This record gives sequence, C-alpha cells and structure tokens, in this order.
Amino acid sequence: MAIMPVTDSMFLLAEAREHPMHVGGLQLFELPDGAGPDYVSDLHRQLLETVDVRPLFRRRPRGPVGVLGQFAWTNDDQLDVEYHVRHSGLPRPGRIRELLELTSRLHGTLLDRHRPLWEFTIIEGLGDNRFATYSKIHHALLDGVSALRLLGSTLSEDPDDRGVRPPWSPPVRTDVFDRPGRRDADPPDPFAAVSAFVKEVAGLGSAAARVVNEAFREQSATLAFQAPKSMFNVPITGARRFAAQGWPLERIRAVGRASGTTVNDVMLAMCSGALRQYMIDLGRLPDRPLVAAVPMSLRTRTPAGETALGGNAIGLILCDLATTDPDPTARLRTIHESMLRGKAVYHGMSRLQVTALSAIPLVPLAIGTIPGLTTVTPPAFNVMISNVPGPRRPLYWNGARMQGVYPLSIPYEGQALNITVTSYAESLEFGLTGCRRTVPHLQRLLGLLEESLTDLEKALC
Amino acid sequence: MAIMPVTDSMFLLAEAREHPMHVGGLQLFELPDGAGPDYVSDLHRQLLETVDVRPLFRRRPRGPVGVLGQFAWTNDDQLDVEYHVRHSGLPRPGRIRELLELTSRLHGTLLDRHRPLWEFTIIEGLGDNRFATYSKIHHALLDGVSALRLLGSTLSEDPDDRGVRPPWSPPVRTDVFDRPGRRDADPPDPFAAVSAFVKEVAGLGSAAARVVNEAFREQSATLAFQAPKSMFNVPITGARRFAAQGWPLERIRAVGRASGTTVNDVMLAMCSGALRQYMIDLGRLPDRPLVAAVPMSLRTRTPAGETALGGNAIGLILCDLATTDPDPTARLRTIHESMLRGKAVYHGMSRLQVTALSAIPLVPLAIGTIPGLTTVTPPAFNVMISNVPGPRRPLYWNGARMQGVYPLSIPYEGQALNITVTSYAESLEFGLTGCRRTVPHLQRLLGLLEESLTDLEKALC
Repeated sequence: MAIMPVTDSMFLLAEAREHPMHVGGLQLFELPDGAGPDYVSDLHRQLLETVDVRPLFRRRPRGPVGVLGQFAWTNDDQLDVEYHVRHSGLPRPGRIRELLELTSRLHGTLLDRHRPLWEFTIIEGLGDNRFATYSKIHHALLDGVSALRLLGSTLSEDPDDRGVRPPWSPPVRTDVFDRPGRRDADPPDPFAAVSAFVKEVAGLGSAAARVVNEAFREQSATLAFQAPKSMFNVPITGARRFAAQGWPLERIRAVGRASGTTVNDVMLAMCSGALRQYMIDLGRLPDRPLVAAVPMSLRTRTPAGETALGGNAIGLILCDLATTDPDPTARLRTIHESMLRGKAVYHGMSRLQVTALSAIPLVPLAIGTIPGLTTVTPPAFNVMISNVPGPRRPLYWNGARMQGVYPLSIPYEGQALNITVTSYAESLEFGLTGCRRTVPHLQRLLGLLEESLTDLEKALC
Repeated sequence: MAIMPVTDSMFLLAEAREHPMHVGGLQLFELPDGAGPDYVSDLHRQLLETVDVRPLFRRRPRGPVGVLGQFAWTNDDQLDVEYHVRHSGLPRPGRIRELLELTSRLHGTLLDRHRPLWEFTIIEGLGDNRFATYSKIHHALLDGVSALRLLGSTLSEDPDDRGVRPPWSPPVRTDVFDRPGRRDADPPDPFAAVSAFVKEVAGLGSAAARVVNEAFREQSATLAFQAPKSMFNVPITGARRFAAQGWPLERIRAVGRASGTTVNDVMLAMCSGALRQYMIDLGRLPDRPLVAAVPMSLRTRTPAGETALGGNAIGLILCDLATTDPDPTARLRTIHESMLRGKAVYHGMSRLQVTALSAIPLVPLAIGTIPGLTTVTPPAFNVMISNVPGPRRPLYWNGARMQGVYPLSIPYEGQALNITVTSYAESLEFGLTGCRRTVPHLQRLLGLLEESLTDLEKALC
C-alpha cells in the first residue's frame, strides 16, 4: 500500500456524483477485410484472455488514510478483467448518433472505487463496417493527455502487425505510463495543472503567494475584460452529452495560411463561431465576449536549441473568443491577438509562477465540492478548450484501421462544457463533453462548427 | 416542495456507491406477428412522444432540508423524457446471457438525484424474436413490491388492446401508486418494513422498546440457532450480478402436494439446495445452516372472513435453510417447520410488535452507512428471500406477449445476495441480485436451482 500524493488524492476527494473525475476516449475502427459477423465478439473474448495487466491498471484506491485525507493505492489481488473489459451492442440503425448516445451514458456514471479505476468497452452494431471502443480512466490514475497518448501508443503503424496488445497489457512502445514522475514531459492537461500548482505551491510562504497574486492581476489586466456570466457557468448534474467529429487538418491549415494565424487559432475561431450561433439560437448570447481557458505548452526554442523556460511549462491562457462580433474574420483576428498577448504574459516568468498563474482559474475545481465551502472566486473563464497533439500517421489495431479518436473530458461545477481536440493523421478530432441538462442539443454544435469553418473559408480562402 | 417523510428520506440517506437503493424489473416480451426490424426503435420513439407523465414520475429529491436531515420532493419542471427512456442494443449472439450482463451493469449504477429517480430501457438484439425492458426506480419513490405491481398493472390481458400506456403515463388500471398512504395494502416488501418500523416506533418511550427487545429474544429463542458467518455477509461493492429464470409453477405445486408443504416452502427448499451446492463448489459451506429472512404477509382468514391481525401486517420470518443437511426431503421438512414456528412467534402480537420485530434484523441497512457508526448488531440472517405475488394471467403490451418478469432487488452492506421471486401466469420467476465481487458466477445458481428442484421431484413425486 502506497500513500497517494495529495495531488492525486485531490481528484478522488473533489469527485461528486455531479462531476465524475474520469476522462475518456472514443476510438472508431474499420473492420478489417474478411471480418465475419463474430469479429467483435471474438476480439472481446481475446481481450478477456489477456492475463498480463500492467501495475497501473491493477491499482485501486483505499482510504482516506493520510493525515491530509489522502488516499492510498493498493493492489487489486482479485482483478476481475470481465468487469473492466465490456462488450456492448448498439440498437438499430447503428449510426454515429446511437454510438454517441451510448458513449454519453457510459461517460456519465462513476467508476467503482473498489476496483482499479478504469473501464474499456468494445462496441459493435455500427453501420458502414465499423466498430468502436470507449475507454474510461480516472484522473487520479492517469491525466487526460497521458490517457489519450496511451490509447494511441498501444496501436501500430503497420496494418499487418498482429502483435498489438490492449492498453492495460505490457509491453507498449513507451514506458512512461507507470512513472508518474515524467508527467511534466506531457503536452498540457488542464487538470494536471491544478495538481502541479498544489504540489509546487503547498508549503511556500506568503512571499510566494504574493508573487502569484500579482501575476494573476497582471494577466487579468492584459485581458481588459472579464468573463461574462453565461449559460455554461452554473451548477451541473451528473448526466453527460457527448458530441464528436473530425475535420481535415488541411482545411484548417489553409485558413491559417490565408490569415497568418495558427491551426490552434483557427480551431478556437471555429469554436467561437459555433458557440456564438448556438447561444444566439437559444437566445442566451451574453453581451460581452466569452472567455476560453486554453492550456498551452510554453516550450519555445531559442536559437541555441534550448527552451526559453526551464522544461516544458504549461500555461493556461485566457482567450477572448470575440463571440459578440458577427464577422468571422474579425473574430479570428481577435483570438489570434488574444493568444499572443496571453503568451506574452508568461514571458520571463519562473516555472513556478507559470504553473501557479495557470492554476488559479482552476482552483474552484479542487475546492468546489467541499461541503459548506462556497467558492467566492468569480468565474475566470466560460469554457475550457484544449488541443492535445496526437499521432501523425494512421494507426492499426491488429489490422483494423483507426478512423478516428475523440477525447471525452471533465465538465465540473461552474464549467458545464469542455471542448478537447486532438490531431490524428490528417484530421483534427473534436470531442465536446457537456452536462446533459445545462447544454441541450449538444449535437447541434457539430453542424455549427462546420458552418463556422465554412464561413472562415468563404471570407479568407 | 413537500418535505419527504423521514422514512422515505432514509433510503436516500442510507444510499452509498456500494449499495444503490433502487429496485428493478426485467421484462421479456415476444415480438408480435408481423413486427419488422424497426419494431423496437419505433416503440422507443412512441414512448418518447408520451408527454403525459404522472406526478410520481416527475418528482425529484431536494435536500437535505428538514431538521432530521430529510429530503423534500420537488417537481422537475425540465423533465427530460429522453434521459429517462432509453434504447439499448445487445451484442451478438443476443442470448439471455448478454441480456443479463447488460441488466447487471444497468442495475449497478446510481440514479441521478437531479432528476426524477427512475430509468426505463428498452432493449433490442435478443434472439428468438424477443425484446426486453429494464425498469429502475428508487426505493424512496416506490417500494419494490409496488414497483413490480405497477409494471404489471399497466399491461393488458387482451392481446388486441392497443391502448396500453407506459408505467409513467396515466391512466393505469389502479390508482394506488400516487398515494403512498395505501402501501400497507401491498404484499410484503422487506425494505418497506424498515420504513414502517421507523415510522411506528419513532418517538415511543423505553417501555415500547422493551416490548420489541423481548419479542426479538423470543424469536431468536425459537430459532435455537444463530446465523453462521457466511460468504454473503461481508462488506460489498457497487457492481452487480443479476441472474434470472422462471420455473413452471405446476412443478413446484406437485412437490408441495407430495410433501404437504406450500409453494413458498418448496421455493425456499430450491434456494436452500442451490445455495448449499454453490457454497460446496466454492469450498465455503458453513458448518451451521444458513438462515434466510423471509418477509411474509401475516393476513390469516378467520371463519368470519376477517383477518386475525388488524390489517395486513408484514412479518419477517427467520427460516432455517438446513443447508448442512445433504437430504433434499429433510431440508424441505426443516424449512416447512421453521416457517410454521416463525409465523407462530407473531401469533397474538399487536401490529406494532409485528412490524418492530420484523424490522430489527433490517436495521443495519438503515444505519449501515452513517460514517463512523459501526454496526454492533451481529448478522441476524444470511440471505433475504422474498416471494411477491404477481399477475395470474398472461399480459400483453400492445400485442407483445410478456414471456416473463424478473425482479431485481437491493443487496446491501453485509447482505451480498438477494433472491426475489414473483409469480406470473403459470410460472415462478426468480431474480437473483448479488454483489459482483462477493458472489462470483451467480449464473451457476440457476442451474443449481433446477438441480435442486429435480432432486425434490425425484425424491417425492
């Protein structure tokens, strides 16, 4: 039994029925040539026969045990693989719509704390010769970025490779996942920033706190505006809606080239246009622009090939989404400038300052569910939008080509919608996770994202 | 907003991740003649179009609000029928096995307290021209017996009746379900006995408590044994296994006739034989016989046509299951005598005494999850076995014949297995709900129940 770090325990302590603290991934595969009607059943049976389970996937929480209310990790010596690895079917007609409904329901239930905190569901019944998997893992075990990377790292670039093992079974092509200490080499995970903040700031005196407070005032000042109250910043319920779709990276790059902006800027502009129209349709567009929280890697290469900041710091940038502006090109320009200003705030800061500053808007997540403690911090942003780099080449699972992979993240109290995108091969894959009650008709946002991109193309390309 | 009675709030307060306090029902239907491949999808769509939802199914809990920690009921003015009424598919090959796996998973997740406390899932993909429904309702809303009765009462005895409405939509053939005050006319629900106990005993002085204690000692004395420690009487986890099967009532009646025992005695003997063999196979048969808690209606007709007890009292009888005895006939005889002695204990008691005495072994359920409060009562029984009378004639849902209906009940701390049976037409339907971790291979009990009945038939018929 090993006492869990306070920072991992936090994700268990902060969890409530209203906001399960697990992340997920939906993967879509093509059935390989010659796959019979029992292909998925057979695959499921093979998965159950995998007896090698890596230590990370055998750990279960026990507690609270520590003086600070920490949990401990203990080994599950009765690991019940059939519990964790499930087989589900879709009802007819087996469209993406039915798949997303099932995924939404699976993502909205709590993991069982008496067992290792993960589930894997293989899903059949999709039309067009496809099947899917939905993976679910608790943030205390693995942060969202690492989880997504693990999913990819177990697949193969070789369509003929038949030695691909499931994510919970060693070996995989990278060994970072049993070593939490190497997390800082990961791309940005917003919730991990909270951990890092607690870890680095805990125990420091008031001088350090003053630095952080001053930096926060500085960032707020550069924004020159505050996040409005919006329909997304309210208490939430436990049920989820999930919507997902991929867009060709080339379309997004073309808009970037035509406007002198980055793929990330264009992605944010797509979100901005879609959210604007969504709120207009519901009659709930605030008269001040929405503010997005965007985690960014702040690693910048110097001429000497080194990084400007020591290591790979993650900064949370508050970005003006310009949702009050009807002109798509103007919105993109505002977003681009806002992101540049946001990054500039971090210039010359120490890593501790960067981390602390980034974590401040996320602190309500950590303290939001302690009974009786009212969060007095006003909402610092309206929606979190993360972009996680993914695999660049097509991947295969024992011959089954992965068509797409879509991240499911964590809405929480006051943050009813989360948008996480990831790149895969030549596609940018959007995963929208929302509170079912607060964010109605989430699927509509997919159509609006397409409209938003088309508007940019018409104006710029 | 109406404050909930303490007794209903109790089921919300006592609920934990480890033991959700909802009951369920699995119904199996034949597809009607001429049903096309979209029959179930169409049925689901029609169900979603039902806008009339009875008040009971619109209530959601709010709280705690009362001085005793009670919850209140409030009306859900954003009722989201699509959330409650779901459509699921089974993976191939669509056997009962796949259906029970799905049902186990559905029964193991908590209901969302931000919404009315029920879910209804219509399930397609079953072989042999069938489909199924799984209904889930919180015990605070409706006790298990009433829930099961409601499911039946909405169906029709007429195969040509096309006016059958879903359980959440008025009108149904009986109006008792919006009037909780009439619960005492129901057949026995064990958990309702806890409610009744709290309601009737709360506020009484020490004299009343003494009566109850003396009666409990009296019942314990008649048992002349105590429940052994068994594999079923341990802390449990939240995941469930569910197994279900029906047996022809005529087979059970024949054994009863041949032995001079009741259908209920024979049912208990089936359970006894099956549990004995199950524990032998696992090497975990205790050296003293298991004790079952059996809720029984104590209404007995006098020659004048009146009942011996005022009203319809529910007594919880502790029954010697004779699991140490290898002879099936001897086990049946012991069970028969134990049930007679158990009923005799209640003879001449007041209703309050009957209720209080019945509730004592169940009290750990109510207090088991208050943090820091250790239950000092030793386990008074090993397994709860309930028999709920059901519909006598075949029922139809707009032309689809119901083949079977199986109850899912509530395992709780120290009680990892619940067996509830119900009669339907000419069948006795068994529903076994267990903690997934504590009760492995629950399905095996179905085969053992059949063996157990066959053994009795061989010995007696």
